[in-house]
Amino acid sequence: MYYEEKTMKSERLYEGRIINLRVDTVELPNRKYSRREIVEHSNSVLIIPILDDEYTLLVKQFRKAVDKVILEFPAGLIDSGEDPSEAALRELQEEVGYSANKLNYIYDAYSSPGFTNEKVSIFLAEDLYESKLENDEDEFLEIVKIKIDDLIDMLHNYEISDAHTIIGIQYLENRRLMSNA
Amino acid sequence: MYYEEKTMKSERLYEGRIINLRVDTVELPNRKYSRREIVEHSNSVLIIPILDDEYTLLVKQFRKAVDKVILEFPAGLIDSGEDPSEAALRELQEEVGYSANKLNYIYDAYSSPGFTNEKVSIFLAEDLYESKLENDEDEFLEIVKIKIDDLIDMLHNYEISDAHTIIGIQYLENRRLMSNA
Repeated sequence: MYYEEKTMKSERLYEGRIINLRVDTVELPNRKYSRREIVEHSNSVLIIPILDDEYTLLVKQFRKAVDKVILEFPAGLIDSGEDPSEAALRELQEEVGYSANKLNYIYDAYSSPGFTNEKVSIFLAEDLYESKLENDEDEFLEIVKIKIDDLIDMLHNYEISDAHTIIGIQYLENRRLMSNA
Repeated sequence: MYYEEKTMKSERLYEGRIINLRVDTVELPNRKYSRREIVEHSNSVLIIPILDDEYTLLVKQFRKAVDKVILEFPAGLIDSGEDPSEAALRELQEEVGYSANKLNYIYDAYSSPGFTNEKVSIFLAEDLYESKLENDEDEFLEIVKIKIDDLIDMLHNYEISDAHTIIGIQYLENRRLMSNA
């Protein structure tokens, strides 16, 4: 059982556009009570797009939460009723203007299970073809095409800071090391 | 500049034990307004402990936010006034009862920059020696010793779900591939 926590009370403090906040009162195995602050967030997808076996596509955007412009693989929320691979193909098209003939699931990763239920499903998209949409006029991002080798160097130089993008780049690095072995 | 967002208003909706919630009203580059829901969270550390060059130590614990028992590398919040490497050594001792003669910084990773500022500094701890503390009676976790090779297999079998732990295991996998090259 590993010390499961029993919910004694659950209070919803905020319902928003992308997150809800609730505070659960739980009973610990020693019968004491404790409070758990929990941010509910939809599940998401992140896509590693591989172009011509040699390039990858990322998006550069301002992220208010960290007050910084950062470089990330294309990503987004899964819509209700959508399965993760559908969401991955949709986000790939919406964010970088490509579709993929080959989509492989890699890992699911909880962003930070100490306080949020957000789970990101990570996909590798290969055999891409252009499939541009009209731009969403409220989305401001720059698409960046980078050689896989250069992107791995950027990670080693501490230029990548998004956790799920790091997982994606290390996956590519691993794949390269294995194909060279 | 990359489409920086100007804060027009900032409303603090909740101040809690480990998180705060605020909603910022921002002006987009097209002069429209939008709202950003932001969860403020202290910065954290995660430690990859290597024992006798062959084993690693993880903690198994129930995480209320995801309603599941999961396996993670030892981790925790950075206390105020503490620097990340101090926090890493402290958490290593508190969570698994070891200290380290060798501590190497690997990467900083934002957990989910779309909605939270949480940044996790990841360290590799080697040359460990036992240094047990009395248990915190409100912390319920099991320490698990696993061979590095087995842990890499567990990742490939989808048994690891915490994003920062995945980054740590991929790092070990990489290191193994490079030393075999």
